Amino acid sequence: MHFTSETSSNGVIERNFTLGEITGVLWSPVSGSVGAPLLLSGHSGGMHKKAPGLVAGALHCVTTYGYTVAAIDTPGHGDRPRNPQDQRSADAIHRARAAGEPIAPIVVDYNRWLAERAVPEWQATIDALQALPEIGAETAIGYGGMTLGVVTGLMLATVESRIAALSIGAVFVDDALIETARKITIPVEYRIPWDDEYIDRHAGLALFDAFGSREKTLHAHSGGYNQVPEYERDNSARFFARHLRRAGATPA
Amino acid sequence: MHFTSETSSNGVIERNFTLGEITGVLWSPVSGSVGAPLLLSGHSGGMHKKAPGLVAGALHCVTTYGYTVAAIDTPGHGDRPRNPQDQRSADAIHRARAAGEPIAPIVVDYNRWLAERAVPEWQATIDALQALPEIGAETAIGYGGMTLGVVTGLMLATVESRIAALSIGAVFVDDALIETARKITIPVEYRIPWDDEYIDRHAGLALFDAFGSREKTLHAHSGGYNQVPEYERDNSARFFARHLRRAGATPA
Repeated sequence: MHFTSETSSNGVIERNFTLGEITGVLWSPVSGSVGAPLLLSGHSGGMHKKAPGLVAGALHCVTTYGYTVAAIDTPGHGDRPRNPQDQRSADAIHRARAAGEPIAPIVVDYNRWLAERAVPEWQATIDALQALPEIGAETAIGYGGMTLGVVTGLMLATVESRIAALSIGAVFVDDALIETARKITIPVEYRIPWDDEYIDRHAGLALFDAFGSREKTLHAHSGGYNQVPEYERDNSARFFARHLRRAGATPA
Repeated sequence: MHFTSETSSNGVIERNFTLGEITGVLWSPVSGSVGAPLLLSGHSGGMHKKAPGLVAGALHCVTTYGYTVAAIDTPGHGDRPRNPQDQRSADAIHRARAAGEPIAPIVVDYNRWLAERAVPEWQATIDALQALPEIGAETAIGYGGMTLGVVTGLMLATVESRIAALSIGAVFVDDALIETARKITIPVEYRIPWDDEYIDRHAGLALFDAFGSREKTLHAHSGGYNQVPEYERDNSARFFARHLRRAGATPA
């Protein structure tokens, strides 16, 4: 892991990094983060490691709770090159959207393929982060994400026992994702817009029902796709505080 | 409104009161409550104004957020006499429960009849509370409740414009309650146990869908009837803080 830049603002250190082909960013409190939980943040499809909503959530977690937050670009996203298959999928999504056709079938397939490539990258990132003296191997780790970031997080959690809690938002649901959810037993918090114009609420409820977790919470709120109420940002941070209890897991 | 006792403990003043036939209790912060929101708390069927869960929630709201909280006994509950009809309904519920028969049909009818009697009593209680100098007519008012307390709160909110927000838990749902919910336009937070052994989750989801409110939030959590996670107590207080914004609406 090579840090390529370091800036500091409002009590938060932001470090960009590379790890082989992976491009990522790490946010941590200026006041120090030893023993604080590590949150992994998975961006939406078409977005990147510094998507505005992702950054807002990360900064809230760092400044209010003292967490460390890491995000990486999914292959073909952000600072990473698109291969021909990435380009074809992106073009197909744009064409379907422009034509007013359903994008779900294309998105679902592309997301799964992207997530399959992202999972080992997240695992390598966790290895590298845990090798940092300010994080270490004993750090409690949570994962949060939206859409593509949800698919990645669910697949990651089924193969990676270091993930201790999942806080997720809206996602296109297919049978494969339902099957993945059944294998998940760690605490899950799941936010769905009740009036989502793209994702049927019954699909969301079926995904919630499928999670094998003993502790799971669904937050449904009025509003459409991408209209996540701002207070849910803090709810998510508090969810991680409940499940990743170490020093720093209470409001700073 | 006659205060019949006053005690103080852990920063909270508890005053029992009577108002005509109504028996009630008022919790307020020792530090003063001028300008703080007023929460009305409706107890479950078969319980009373000092049911353990209700008291725990009230004390949390007073000590952490500086709210004033009031609860009254529903007719036939707590310190209030049962009339012959109350007694017949209570006996019928006990018999059905002992026989392992469904209690929902009896509970739904009895709850509605109780709530019809409780609504004008809550309105008289609000009048009397607003006449107290430490509360006043400008106080923002929220209502919280479980089961019977939900039915009462929904009926109250449709006729009483002073109720500005509703935070409710599990309730038996019938068509009449769905119709009542459609008339509600104030912000609603609704908690349901996902694995409720008495109340079908689809009935709960239908009730959530029926609310006419622009802002509504559903919190579903794993677990059965009456297994409300403790963190939901604070979620509810924070919901009221968002919607009853005055002095004292932020954590004390």
